[in-house]
Amino acid sequence: MSDHPEVPVTPVEAFEPPYYVAVFTTVRTPDQSGFPETNARMEELVKDIPGYLGMDHAQNPGGLGITVAYFRDAEALTQWRTHAEHRAAQERGRAEWYESYTLHVAKVERSHGFNRA
Amino acid sequence: MSDHPEVPVTPVEAFEPPYYVAVFTTVRTPDQSGFPETNARMEELVKDIPGYLGMDHAQNPGGLGITVAYFRDAEALTQWRTHAEHRAAQERGRAEWYESYTLHVAKVERSHGFNRA
Repeated sequence: MSDHPEVPVTPVEAFEPPYYVAVFTTVRTPDQSGFPETNARMEELVKDIPGYLGMDHAQNPGGLGITVAYFRDAEALTQWRTHAEHRAAQERGRAEWYESYTLHVAKVERSHGFNRA
Repeated sequence: MSDHPEVPVTPVEAFEPPYYVAVFTTVRTPDQSGFPETNARMEELVKDIPGYLGMDHAQNPGGLGITVAYFRDAEALTQWRTHAEHRAAQERGRAEWYESYTLHVAKVERSHGFNRA
């Protein structure tokens, strides 16, 4: 999802619990017209949500995609879930872009990170 | 991670909360000698843990990978985390295979799924 491949990729860090993760696993339809633009717009919009901490995304070519978004608290997640433009994108996703998806919303109890450097 | 590309890919389903997710985000080193075999072995071993529910995995070619494993309760996760052979694999991962990673362990509060079919 990066436009800057020269910047080293790193996973989003471990924050101090408690915080929230929204795990969104998807398989997409063959016709992805409009998806890249809407996806880029959502990635910008979510940054304005107070308590938004970051996002990881990985995509198997032609297969499963996983997006994990991190939020400080449940209120931040509610704000994002109910954001009008995000709501419209969710609706279009079900109508056009997603063959199937699952959303798991969870409260982080522990976390840690590792860096070789 | 499938050896059966003819089987349609679907995300792991939404289970009845509460359950646990372990979100493991990684960037790997250039030398991945031994990784595929160990990874395949871990994918088999985890299935023997009582309370293991499933796993999703996605990998950006040459970049970030995300594995999400689902467990019925914290006890199942503890069993997996402390499994002797898994412990050895974790150690080798830090020594050889991972440039960086983050692990987030979280209790799922709500979830839902969508299927076009």
